[in-house]
This record gives sequence, structure tokens and C-alpha cells, in this order.
Amino acid sequence: MNDLPFLLPEYVERLHRTKESMEAAGVEVLLLTDPANLYYLSGYDAWSFYVHQMLVVILEEEQPIWIGREQDANGARLTTWIHRDNIIPYPDDYVQSLQKHPMDFIADCLTQIGQADRRIGVEMDSYYFTAQAYERLKKGMPDARFQDCTLLVNRVRMVKSDQEIAYMLKAARIAEGAMQMALESIAPGVRECDVAANIFHAQVSGTPHFGGDYPAIVPLLPAGEKTSTPHLTWTDRTYKQGDTVLVELAGCYRRYHSPLARTAVIGAPSSLVRDLAEVVIEGLNTTLDAVKPGMTCEEVEWVWRSSIAKNGWLKESRMGYSVGLNYPPDWGEHTASFRPGDQTILQPNMTFHMIPGMWFDAYGVELSETFRVTENGCEVLADFPREVFQCPVDSGVYHPLGGSGA
Amino acid sequence: MNDLPFLLPEYVERLHRTKESMEAAGVEVLLLTDPANLYYLSGYDAWSFYVHQMLVVILEEEQPIWIGREQDANGARLTTWIHRDNIIPYPDDYVQSLQKHPMDFIADCLTQIGQADRRIGVEMDSYYFTAQAYERLKKGMPDARFQDCTLLVNRVRMVKSDQEIAYMLKAARIAEGAMQMALESIAPGVRECDVAANIFHAQVSGTPHFGGDYPAIVPLLPAGEKTSTPHLTWTDRTYKQGDTVLVELAGCYRRYHSPLARTAVIGAPSSLVRDLAEVVIEGLNTTLDAVKPGMTCEEVEWVWRSSIAKNGWLKESRMGYSVGLNYPPDWGEHTASFRPGDQTILQPNMTFHMIPGMWFDAYGVELSETFRVTENGCEVLADFPREVFQCPVDSGVYHPLGGSGA
Repeated sequence: MNDLPFLLPEYVERLHRTKESMEAAGVEVLLLTDPANLYYLSGYDAWSFYVHQMLVVILEEEQPIWIGREQDANGARLTTWIHRDNIIPYPDDYVQSLQKHPMDFIADCLTQIGQADRRIGVEMDSYYFTAQAYERLKKGMPDARFQDCTLLVNRVRMVKSDQEIAYMLKAARIAEGAMQMALESIAPGVRECDVAANIFHAQVSGTPHFGGDYPAIVPLLPAGEKTSTPHLTWTDRTYKQGDTVLVELAGCYRRYHSPLARTAVIGAPSSLVRDLAEVVIEGLNTTLDAVKPGMTCEEVEWVWRSSIAKNGWLKESRMGYSVGLNYPPDWGEHTASFRPGDQTILQPNMTFHMIPGMWFDAYGVELSETFRVTENGCEVLADFPREVFQCPVDSGVYHPLGGSGA
Repeated sequence: MNDLPFLLPEYVERLHRTKESMEAAGVEVLLLTDPANLYYLSGYDAWSFYVHQMLVVILEEEQPIWIGREQDANGARLTTWIHRDNIIPYPDDYVQSLQKHPMDFIADCLTQIGQADRRIGVEMDSYYFTAQAYERLKKGMPDARFQDCTLLVNRVRMVKSDQEIAYMLKAARIAEGAMQMALESIAPGVRECDVAANIFHAQVSGTPHFGGDYPAIVPLLPAGEKTSTPHLTWTDRTYKQGDTVLVELAGCYRRYHSPLARTAVIGAPSSLVRDLAEVVIEGLNTTLDAVKPGMTCEEVEWVWRSSIAKNGWLKESRMGYSVGLNYPPDWGEHTASFRPGDQTILQPNMTFHMIPGMWFDAYGVELSETFRVTENGCEVLADFPREVFQCPVDSGVYHPLGGSGA
């Protein structure tokens, strides 16, 4: 038996709940391409999602079917719980070819096993389900009735098992270590890339007791005017006194994430940053205190909105989202957001990343927490001071941690 | 002016060649979603491709139009050469919402500027152009005539400029450092995750003279039975004497990659591994010696195929592909592969990753080189011994490079 991250009964139960959702949606066959959903239901874990691959769930079948590239089939045999007969490789000349498309192969497979004229669910808005993939499936299975099942499995994933929570807590330990490393590394004269390198090292090395997995998003640490926007990556520019640095990162353990963001300032923060930080921290604290099962996501956002409104602020963008299992390019689960109109009801063991970032034309502030909903409130996963950090301007010589090339 | 990776005339020339290809393909408007193509034409560089975004090229317009999420618009202003009027943000309630889709917004924009009834090219098989994105565009622009332009810009990118080659050479320096770090770290009793952490550190820190960017694929370093398949990622298992470890990684500089793979053995390699390695190295050397402009990709593969056939071997999967600029999940350019049937003709300053990996049920060997085609042959970018490395079994105490969490 492979070293699976979950016990077999948990996979069976996940599959059972997925089939319930399929029945509710009126589909008989579900074609999954989101790598997180492949992992969730089968255990399959490899950096092979840059080629087309699929997990097929058929209502009447006990096990799903994995279809992927030939050289990845051994990876499927080594990481999943499914029977070898259900691992179907496609030949390599289907890979990134103009003549052949993997979805042609998959349509042929489904036709051969008598599934091509059924009601088939597809993940229409999943990153790795391209427009072309859908066109080819429609062409190859003209009698199928396709139906959009984007997020069907993501919704099954929303309430975490105890084992999943245990993994997210391990991820939070890794996030704490990586954030600590970031704050210790940021100093005048240090290159952004060296801080990012130290964060990566801490994320992947993990702790002495357990190693880290690769987070679905690289460390984001915009500084200076780049703090006006959240998603720029590092350069080899050196930090300067007076820089504000937004650090957003996650720990990841067996594909489960616990993101964490903090703001650092080199030297004394400007009054603009200090005032904004106070508002953000107060809003974050107030909102976390209010979270409890039965609330809707929009009610959570309303607590935040009211808190910052007292100080005259308004934030247009969502202030959090469901989080947990994922692969690049996103650690969010895409099922729920803290924003007006989102009626998702919080339940125990749902997990969220609450990130009330505020970005203006010349500066910004970000602090975040990942939490799980408990029976009567919430539990923040990481234990890290909730403040803006002032990095010393005279921290002496910076010691890079590792070697490098010529 | 922003700190662009290329001079303005290079962007203008790229856009000019893109428009020539558009005319040849018979399209008047090109909708790009591949982040590498956004970067190539506009300079836009951010980890924001987890939400829908687009670069619009209109045949008659001097500048492309960037359309993306509101909080990323400042990122577009900071990283592109295009005019602020051509940076169009969509409100945050379009993000990962079931009610609103960013492609509805984009279709509205294109309608308003009179482009919705034209011949429109889309990247049908690009990772970030989902089936849903296409459906929404068709619905929002019923009079448009859509046409598949997958790889149109990728093909424009195939022959690299001198500046692009200079970046890939920097990436090769980073790859050398990261591979050196990997080979120095692998030893019995060391966790896979700690080797991966050291590789990441070297990749991102770069060299004392220039920093590294994040490669589009994480370091792959399967060991033991996992060498039977190329794309499994690390665990926190410790290496054991006798393990074969396949190390595949890239250096990345300003989004340009130079991948490199080597095989390491802890202790003496088995005769199986040694014999296979000899065949792979001889085949790789012979093929690199044969490469010259005017050959087709399938002719290159034929040289390899003939070399290993002498020793009774056959490799079914492609043994290389075009490489350079990219974002996760792939550093390949998807335009050309070394395999039977690929008629792409090699031209000077095309760049490829030649990776004749061989994976069997219980073991595998991988060695690779990234090269550019020259006027009369090829230039291998990295300078790294082309051999199987024997890691000592008694390397003493392993010193982890960096700190970690609790």
C-alpha cells in the first residue's frame, strides 16, 4: 500500500459525498481536471498538471479512473489508492502536439467503456480545463450531455476532517517559521531576492519534525511603491530605510496551506502607515472575535466593513476566502469569499484566510490570519504577533544563508 | 519610465511581428491569456494569473490593452510600457464569483470600443483560458468570429533576441549553482525536503551579481523507486545508501529559464544504472554534436534514437522541447518537440531543453542540457560536468543551511 496522506475510509467517504453531489446536480459521470480535486479523491500528487490529465468519477463505479501521460502513470501507481487497472496512460505523442489532443484519447476511453452518451459534469472554469479541452470532448462524445460542475468537489472539500485540520496546523507551524525568517532577513542593503530565498528555504525545509511542501503561490513581498499592489514578486533591488514591505506567504504540508501576511517597515513607519495599520488590526481583531458558525460570509465582511467605516475607511475588494488544499497558481479554494452577496453559511471546520489588505496609490498595509470555524467561534491557526513590525535600520552585516552560483 | 527588462524598441518589434502573424492567420483582434505572452508583449509581471486577465492586441492600435483585476492595475502600471489609458481594471466582485465572470466585463469592453464583431483570435489551449472563459466571450460577443490562435505568440517568441539569450545565460549560471547545491546536499540521512530547500534558496538568491526569479516548475528530485517516473515532488523521507536521485531544476532570470538535469547515486551505482547512464550520456553528446540550423526537430530526435538503438534501447517519449520564457506550471514553450513528426526547422537563437530521460519500472536516469542554436551548431548554456554523480555515503554531519519553525 502506498504512503497515503489519509486513511482509505476517508477517501471512500469523500467519493461517497462527491457522488451525492453528482446525483443532486443530475450528472452520472464527473470529469475532474483541478489537480486539487484529483489529489482529494485519489491521492494523486505530482507536478504533472502542465499536461492534460483527468480523474473520472462514474456514479456506479467503486473507484475513480485516472487518465494521464504515460510517464506519469507510475506516479499514479505510487501515490493513489486506486487499482492499477484504473490507471490509464496516454502515449507521449499526445503531449503538446498540434496533431493529437489528450482529450481525444480520453473521449475514446469513455466511449469504449460506455460512458459517452451520459450526463457528464465538467469543471468549466478550472485552470487546467482549457477551452480546447472542452471542444475536443464535445467533438469526441457527440451524444454526451455536458453540464457545468465547476466547484462541485471544491464544495465537498469545504468542511475539513480532523486529519485535514491537523495538516493545516502543521502548515501554520511552517508559516510561523517562514514569517519569522522573513522579518529577521529584511534590512537596509539586503536584496529582496535573498529574503525570498530565505522564506523559500524555511517553507520547504519545514520544521525538524516534518518537512514542508511547495505552497501554491510564491512568497509575495512588495516593497516601497510596489506596496500599492499585492501581487508583484521580488527583484534583486536592495531594501532601503523607510521601505514598507508587505509579506504574504503560506506554510504548506501535504498540499494543505496556512497563509499568513504581515507588514514590516524598515525604520519608523510613516504616520500614514501607522494610522492605516491601527485600523486594519482593529478591524481584523474585531472580525475574528465575531466569527461563529451560522453566520454568512457577507455577515463576516459586514463586521469588518463597520469597524473600518468608524475610521472613515472603505475597502472594495473581498477581505478573505476559503482556503486549504490546492496547487499552483492559487491556494484559495474558490468556494466562498468574505464580501457582500456571499451567502455561504459558516460551519465548524470550514477554513478561511482572512486578509484585509488595503492598497493605495503609494502605500499599503496587509495583515492576515488563517482560521478554522469552531463549534462556537474560530481558532486562528498560526501563533504570530498581530502587529506591524519595525525592522532595525542598523542590523549590521546581513549573512546570506546559502551558497549561490558563479 | 518603469524598469523594463527590454528596451522599448524590442517591445515594438515584438508587437509588429505578432501583428504580422495575426494578418497571416486572418484575425484582427488577438485576446491573450498566457501570462508569458502578456509579459512578452507588455512587460506585465505579477503572480495574478490565478484570476482571469487579458492582453488585447488590435491590428490598428499602437499599444495593447491590459484588462485585469482592480488591485492588480497598479502592478500593470509599474511593470508595463503601455499607456495608463490602456490599463483597464475590473471590479473585485468579478473575482471567483458565481454571479459575475471577468470575461463578461471584457466582452463589454470590447463591445464598447467597437471590436466585438471582428475576427478574434483566442488561445484555446492556454492553461488560463478556461472552457468557461470562452463560453462567456461567445455569449457576450455573439457577432464575433472566433478563431484558435493557440501558440501564435509562442511562435513569435521562438527565435530569441540577444537580450533574451543574455537572460538565459544568467539563468544558466543560477542553474549551475542550484545543481551544485543539490549534489552537495544529497547524502544518507538527509531529508529530501532539506535538499529541495537548499535548491530553492540557490535558485531564488541567484548569484552575488544578480538575483534569481522563481522557476515555473519546482525542483523535481525523485529518489529510489520514485525514479520510475519524473514528476513526483519531495517528501520528508531521508535518503538512503544506494538511492538513485534524479535532479531536474532550472535557473530563472526575469522569467527566462535554463533547465538542467543530472542523476546522482548515493554510494556506488548499480550496473543497471551505470549501463543506462553510459547510453544516455553518449546519446546526449552525439545529439548535441549533431545539432545545427536547418535540421528539423524530428531529425534531431533521430540522431538520439539511432545512438541508443545501437545499444538496444528505445525511448517512446519526446527527448526535448523549446524553452525560455514562462510562468507556472511549465517552463516549456509548447512550440516544438524533439520527436518523430515534428517538422520545426532549427534556426539560430532558438533555444531548447534536451532531456533524454529514461524511466523504467524500478529505476531511471536523466541528464539534460539547455542550448541555443548557433550559426553552425549549438551552444550549451550551462557549464556542468555531464556525468552521473556519486554522492559519498559517509559525508559526515549534514549542516542544514537555514532556520525553520518550531
